[in-house]
Amino acid sequence: MQSEVKSLNEECGVFGIWGTPDAAKLTYFGLFALQHRGQEGAGITVNEQGRLRTERGLGLLTDVFSSQQKLNDLRGTAAIGHVRYSTAGANTLENVQPLPFNFSDTQFALAHNGNLTNAISLRKDLEASGAIFHSSSDSEILMHLIRCSKAATLDEQVKAALRKIKGGFAYLLLTKDRLYAALDPNGFRPLVVGQLANGAYVVCSETCALNVVGATFKCDVHPGELLIIDAAGLRIEQYTNKTKLAICSMEFIYFARPDSEIYGVNVHSARKRMGKLLAREHPADADMVIGVPNSSLSAASGYSEESGLPYEIGLVKNQYSARTFIEPTQELREQGVFLKLSAVKGVVAGKRVVLVDDSIVRGTTSRRIVKLLKDAGAKEVHLRIASPPLRFPCFYGIDIQSARELIAANQSVAEMAATFGCDSLAFLSTANLIKAINLKSAAPYHGLCVAYFNGDYPTPLYDYQEEYDTEQQQLAHERGELNGCV
Amino acid sequence: MQSEVKSLNEECGVFGIWGTPDAAKLTYFGLFALQHRGQEGAGITVNEQGRLRTERGLGLLTDVFSSQQKLNDLRGTAAIGHVRYSTAGANTLENVQPLPFNFSDTQFALAHNGNLTNAISLRKDLEASGAIFHSSSDSEILMHLIRCSKAATLDEQVKAALRKIKGGFAYLLLTKDRLYAALDPNGFRPLVVGQLANGAYVVCSETCALNVVGATFKCDVHPGELLIIDAAGLRIEQYTNKTKLAICSMEFIYFARPDSEIYGVNVHSARKRMGKLLAREHPADADMVIGVPNSSLSAASGYSEESGLPYEIGLVKNQYSARTFIEPTQELREQGVFLKLSAVKGVVAGKRVVLVDDSIVRGTTSRRIVKLLKDAGAKEVHLRIASPPLRFPCFYGIDIQSARELIAANQSVAEMAATFGCDSLAFLSTANLIKAINLKSAAPYHGLCVAYFNGDYPTPLYDYQEEYDTEQQQLAHERGELNGCV
Amino acid sequence: MQSEVKSLNEECGVFGIWGTPDAAKLTYFGLFALQHRGQEGAGITVNEQGRLRTERGLGLLTDVFSSQQKLNDLRGTAAIGHVRYSTAGANTLENVQPLPFNFSDTQFALAHNGNLTNAISLRKDLEASGAIFHSSSDSEILMHLIRCSKAATLDEQVKAALRKIKGGFAYLLLTKDRLYAALDPNGFRPLVVGQLANGAYVVCSETCALNVVGATFKCDVHPGELLIIDAAGLRIEQYTNKTKLAICSMEFIYFARPDSEIYGVNVHSARKRMGKLLAREHPADADMVIGVPNSSLSAASGYSEESGLPYEIGLVKNQYSARTFIEPTQELREQGVFLKLSAVKGVVAGKRVVLVDDSIVRGTTSRRIVKLLKDAGAKEVHLRIASPPLRFPCFYGIDIQSARELIAANQSVAEMAATFGCDSLAFLSTANLIKAINLKSAAPYHGLCVAYFNGDYPTPLYDYQEEYDTEQQQLAHERGELNGCV
Amino acid sequence: MQSEVKSLNEECGVFGIWGTPDAAKLTYFGLFALQHRGQEGAGITVNEQGRLRTERGLGLLTDVFSSQQKLNDLRGTAAIGHVRYSTAGANTLENVQPLPFNFSDTQFALAHNGNLTNAISLRKDLEASGAIFHSSSDSEILMHLIRCSKAATLDEQVKAALRKIKGGFAYLLLTKDRLYAALDPNGFRPLVVGQLANGAYVVCSETCALNVVGATFKCDVHPGELLIIDAAGLRIEQYTNKTKLAICSMEFIYFARPDSEIYGVNVHSARKRMGKLLAREHPADADMVIGVPNSSLSAASGYSEESGLPYEIGLVKNQYSARTFIEPTQELREQGVFLKLSAVKGVVAGKRVVLVDDSIVRGTTSRRIVKLLKDAGAKEVHLRIASPPLRFPCFYGIDIQSARELIAANQSVAEMAATFGCDSLAFLSTANLIKAINLKSAAPYHGLCVAYFNGDYPTPLYDYQEEYDTEQQQLAHERGELNGCV
Repeated sequence: MQSEVKSLNEECGVFGIWGTPDAAKLTYFGLFALQHRGQEGAGITVNEQGRLRTERGLGLLTDVFSSQQKLNDLRGTAAIGHVRYSTAGANTLENVQPLPFNFSDTQFALAHNGNLTNAISLRKDLEASGAIFHSSSDSEILMHLIRCSKAATLDEQVKAALRKIKGGFAYLLLTKDRLYAALDPNGFRPLVVGQLANGAYVVCSETCALNVVGATFKCDVHPGELLIIDAAGLRIEQYTNKTKLAICSMEFIYFARPDSEIYGVNVHSARKRMGKLLAREHPADADMVIGVPNSSLSAASGYSEESGLPYEIGLVKNQYSARTFIEPTQELREQGVFLKLSAVKGVVAGKRVVLVDDSIVRGTTSRRIVKLLKDAGAKEVHLRIASPPLRFPCFYGIDIQSARELIAANQSVAEMAATFGCDSLAFLSTANLIKAINLKSAAPYHGLCVAYFNGDYPTPLYDYQEEYDTEQQQLAHERGELNGCV
Repeated sequence: MQSEVKSLNEECGVFGIWGTPDAAKLTYFGLFALQHRGQEGAGITVNEQGRLRTERGLGLLTDVFSSQQKLNDLRGTAAIGHVRYSTAGANTLENVQPLPFNFSDTQFALAHNGNLTNAISLRKDLEASGAIFHSSSDSEILMHLIRCSKAATLDEQVKAALRKIKGGFAYLLLTKDRLYAALDPNGFRPLVVGQLANGAYVVCSETCALNVVGATFKCDVHPGELLIIDAAGLRIEQYTNKTKLAICSMEFIYFARPDSEIYGVNVHSARKRMGKLLAREHPADADMVIGVPNSSLSAASGYSEESGLPYEIGLVKNQYSARTFIEPTQELREQGVFLKLSAVKGVVAGKRVVLVDDSIVRGTTSRRIVKLLKDAGAKEVHLRIASPPLRFPCFYGIDIQSARELIAANQSVAEMAATFGCDSLAFLSTANLIKAINLKSAAPYHGLCVAYFNGDYPTPLYDYQEEYDTEQQQLAHERGELNGCV
Repeated sequence: MQSEVKSLNEECGVFGIWGTPDAAKLTYFGLFALQHRGQEGAGITVNEQGRLRTERGLGLLTDVFSSQQKLNDLRGTAAIGHVRYSTAGANTLENVQPLPFNFSDTQFALAHNGNLTNAISLRKDLEASGAIFHSSSDSEILMHLIRCSKAATLDEQVKAALRKIKGGFAYLLLTKDRLYAALDPNGFRPLVVGQLANGAYVVCSETCALNVVGATFKCDVHPGELLIIDAAGLRIEQYTNKTKLAICSMEFIYFARPDSEIYGVNVHSARKRMGKLLAREHPADADMVIGVPNSSLSAASGYSEESGLPYEIGLVKNQYSARTFIEPTQELREQGVFLKLSAVKGVVAGKRVVLVDDSIVRGTTSRRIVKLLKDAGAKEVHLRIASPPLRFPCFYGIDIQSARELIAANQSVAEMAATFGCDSLAFLSTANLIKAINLKSAAPYHGLCVAYFNGDYPTPLYDYQEEYDTEQQQLAHERGELNGCV
Repeated sequence: MQSEVKSLNEECGVFGIWGTPDAAKLTYFGLFALQHRGQEGAGITVNEQGRLRTERGLGLLTDVFSSQQKLNDLRGTAAIGHVRYSTAGANTLENVQPLPFNFSDTQFALAHNGNLTNAISLRKDLEASGAIFHSSSDSEILMHLIRCSKAATLDEQVKAALRKIKGGFAYLLLTKDRLYAALDPNGFRPLVVGQLANGAYVVCSETCALNVVGATFKCDVHPGELLIIDAAGLRIEQYTNKTKLAICSMEFIYFARPDSEIYGVNVHSARKRMGKLLAREHPADADMVIGVPNSSLSAASGYSEESGLPYEIGLVKNQYSARTFIEPTQELREQGVFLKLSAVKGVVAGKRVVLVDDSIVRGTTSRRIVKLLKDAGAKEVHLRIASPPLRFPCFYGIDIQSARELIAANQSVAEMAATFGCDSLAFLSTANLIKAINLKSAAPYHGLCVAYFNGDYPTPLYDYQEEYDTEQQQLAHERGELNGCV
């Protein structure tokens, strides 16, 4: 399902380009293709003959750039852009990226996707030595670290700073004569490089943004890499060798666009394979398969193909959902008012339905969709989830920083089925998930991070460790009480 | 495909409700479900204890009602609302509906879906007798006719006025103590009645709007009917007996939402049947079937099911498309920048693809989609259209008033295939279209209007006849010249 | 005092120009000089090679034309414009002028200053014969009357229509090939003609608008005149001979700008003479004279000059007052919060002050200003009003349609002095007002309307007569009761 | 004249309040009274139970707080506010004050009126040690200095920081439990303290803001003072003893509101005395005295009183001037289009006029006003300036940082008279200016800064010294060349 229905949010999308006129315009188009990664703010910084200029604002990209003029005013041959979801840091203009930094002698602009796990400690240390922060965004920390570094060159200062931060990050840093791109040592977040016909380089979160600007895919950015793009071309350096690939499996399950490719794996195809393996692992005696639009449609078609059950459109998503501010009251909701999804009565009435969803976070939407289908006359609803139960929080860039909000951390599968009112419920196993994604990596879990499913975090948790331990103990305690044992 | 990709536009959606608190809020939700019928303007009129109050504006519903407050301010137990696409009448605030009319002694508000074929003559006649028009919208004509009528009661005045107008129309008229709904004698546009649990009546363009407000479907409004809803309940009267059902087949093919039902026919299912019959009529030797999102997905799944070819997601639609004002330049477009649709390389590369689209208007989009797929590596693209070639203009409410803009009126199927660059091209036959929709009506074409396909208009064309004849002669002449014969 | 402090409002300002490029821009500048006549709406219609185009909106002129672009888009060599205060008709966009009228064969735009006294009857009659009104503005009535006229030429139709309307009016009517200007038979509202160096004609409410565009004053428009300006030049015709000059004396007292001239009388000089005669009629034993800024400064300087008392700046008006939406609560007001005026402590403390105001409407402001001065330490405040007590409503274009809101209609001078808390209070006599204005006219009151002071209306009151009689009887009754007699 | 006519701009107004509900509302009213000190940005920070919250934006106060709601949302019992003119630092949102600072452990908000003369050096030093600046405003420097201080308490850190900055400044600093106010060692900018009836303290730029909120004046803040207001009340400390009063004389001449008092001197009265001394120093053989509205009216009335010539209103200022974005083109200007001022023909035609203006900056406006009066028929125009010629730049907070833009630095009085087209021109002497203001101070020039008139700066110029010296040499050189000597 899409972010506007489910309470699971990616932090950001980034897009950078170097060496072409129309840099701002292409950045706009690239960000437009990455809008699904963040809808709360957007911005573009251009390098206009050595002067950086930033335009940014709250809301969708199309709100921020509400006129052609505003975009035309951003001239220059290099640019970075950002679409934002606000996990860390309040949703205020100060936090919208790219963050511009103006010094007496130079300028920088910084765009960031991810979440630092030692941000609080770093910030406290920096403030203790006199630093002043203006945003509550992680990105500002990197800038302070760069400026504090005693290294001789900017390249070395950037590397020194990158070595100090922990967690998941994909950074773009624009200066008057260079574009840097950096990925964390685990490669938690995706980042790819492409090239335009005229030789210009593009670095961005997903390949879908390369396609929209007509760029050819060159390579994925790998863990621990620092890319330096300037007049001389592209250099790829390694700021650390202590790397271990652990890319976020939720990118494949839900976040990334189906037309994107991550480490050579097409997202739609991976999802379809998840659906197929799900059908094999958890078949259902039913009349049809339907998916929750839009992100579960690939998995649903895989389930259909494997099971031989017909694939139907039993749920319709209102395509204007991204913009509603006005929500039904609880009372109206009980009367069945549901703005964003509708069941297709003519399709599901009297039928036994396999409902495929990509994942379950809080479970509130699942309950409503099952009710929607039953109200529309579905005889049975067999809920099949194309990923394992989400049981643990994420600290690398997904907006679930507490297990408390995850229904699977609090209820058993049987309890959840009762909560949702469905006739059966089953999840894909972690092993099959890994098999479906099928990354060619020798790292644990074939290079995937599956910590939200099994609690096996690929790194120490730093500033979050204490909070995490406390919560896990509480949850264990609560589950014990609920089960009647101590 | 959806209206934001294709240049084929429905004129409007209407929604009326009588007898419930929260009338404005429910109208908002209903219009939200009808937003696909018109994105250029929206408005709501409430009846607040006998005083009508209208709020309307240009843009999407969510632009016009940009705060909860604005909606809360519209109190009252009855309301009508409108979402607008501007065929007749310029896109200015004056033309946004509902149109409010304030008289010394009373008030009216009028909302309209359709197009009158004798509007120009009626307007000239009315002006000649002193009438002043403020909007360029058809709706105002009906109001003048009502006020000019010498009939004794308002009911009779309305009927007399309805008998004078020609063309396609679904009207809602709100007064201080009544809600009228009227449909033209051919029922060109859909209009349905539902009821809330508390007894309140709803009249609206599609059943999807009934569902979103939790209303139960009661009946379709039939040709020539005038519905009168007031404190006493609902009365259905016939303002004329010269009726002959000819509902717009494009509603089934493209306009209506897949979850709507029209005269008992579910739109998704009808589209799936079109896809199946298309597969039977025009099979293709290929590896997979993909549909143009979102409106062709039903037909594509039908084609897949019938042909046994796997159904794949080979095109992804950017879900934020409704809001882009900023378009790629022609130059960028040539470089492959296409904001609204992306091909999924990982799916189509090296494959022979059946591309299912619901219809073709100008053909520009078809050409771009074929190119998109080929650029993404598709080996062959077999374009299959789930409706017959659009060759004739529509005068009953669809925005094609000239055959000149219809590629199928100007090129043969072979010529079109060359234009689009596809490996084969085929259309569903009119007979199979009618069979797929499968309306239970004794009227010609089983109650469908298929004039855009065969030129057989169910009514005289009145003010448009001369222009139509001239254009047809010119086109015949041009085709003759192109063919080298006179 | 200015309209933003006092609850006395002029209805409108009009400006028309014919025969120059930059017509819209000059109209903007002209309206800017007339902004004091109406702050609730503004609009401009241009004649762009025979096509009329209107831009209008709620708020100040600078709100409506918030960008140079918006003005640049209005091309053409003729234009009319309007700034609006909303006496008759609600403050909605529909009522903002110029009102555009689009017919099948032609277009009109109408701008109006004044108030019709038979509007209600005319509207009822017109509606009875089928007319539909969209605005609640008087202006639309004239358009209906023109269109209903059976006269052979447009000139004659306009004249016939003008003969049917009663009350105070100054109309501008723009067509594709002509600009009409018309004044009511009593000339209640001012209207003047000027000419640019390039020969273009200007017709507008006050000469201050001629000056701002660099036009030379040609003549005042006289009662009963219809001006017709077209390619052939300016013709002045008389649509009626039953005329009797009775120009609104409040224009001289308060409404018009001090730099304007009306029938050859400079407004500042007339006000200064009012102040001088007031000093002679009602001297005061005091230390200084201060005026309520800005409109009473002329009268105050006259009082000072005549009395020999020094003229001081004892009250300062906040020059940003036109834009505050946020008002002090009643509680804060009691604590002395007064946003728009401040007393100058250093000037008035310990002094006996003559406070000159131009007029008193409700008296609430007078009470607050006296308190302001006393709080600032003034020993005595002698309030002198440079016009007679306002006791009767106006039906010709000023926003006092009920005597009930006029304090002088309800209290004696002694009672008012007590209400205001001033040490003495005196008003200029009507005879001295007429002498001060010094119009050269043989009509009653030297061509002035002084009905608000003495109830002697120069015309029948038509639709207002009954309401007026009833109110007068009630007031007489109430005054009797208050006085203890029946 | 007012800032919107003349190109001389004050940097800012500040307002702080501690210890009352409605703190934000009162700050709004206070800023409204200080709006003349800055029209380019406005903001308010409230202390809501220890949490600081800031609302700020570009434009007028009424633009930034465009709804009551926005103000109501700012709850709390302490607040600081700011209206801004942008001398130092670009006109972007980042620079609008109060500047909010959020630390891990605390929050600050800072508002500033003035200009630092060692800002560039300080900023370079701070950046060299790792500091990052977000705004280009001087205020951020103070915050860095405070955070860098090793002093034990915040009070001492603030004092240490204040001792490092040079130039003119009046600072307000809000913390979760304290309000600081500080004035530079020369007291260049005015700053006063008042108290509400409920005991709450107010610190603001001018006494006019005390009056509008109903506060009683307590004292002026003196050079080198740091005020600390908290739950315990008000403490006044001296952060430095090296003080020497040199308050900006332009505050008396032009900036401050006439109803304000500075060090016990009422501004209107000071201006009136300037007018009187000007009349004595430079009499004129004329028929009347007129002032340039609004700021020269006090001086004009003084001139009139002293000379015995009648005081007339010969120029009218359009009271909506603050909002025009649309300006006449040069061509239209030559035709006499002047939006902001109009001459009163009926007053000046055929007359010999003494035109009193408060000061002359570039001279462009003077030339236009003289032309305006002559075009209106004035026989002679004798221009009298109620201050000495502005010949030197200001570095303490007025927006003239280059002598090049000052006409009096480039032309002799005779040359200026020729440029303006007036019949005579004379300026008040510096001695008489000092006498008119009549400050009771033993400091040089009786405690006034008159450096713009005589180049005698009360402090070293620090970062500006070199630029100043170079410009002075160039100007001397140019004057030499113009005079024909080398």
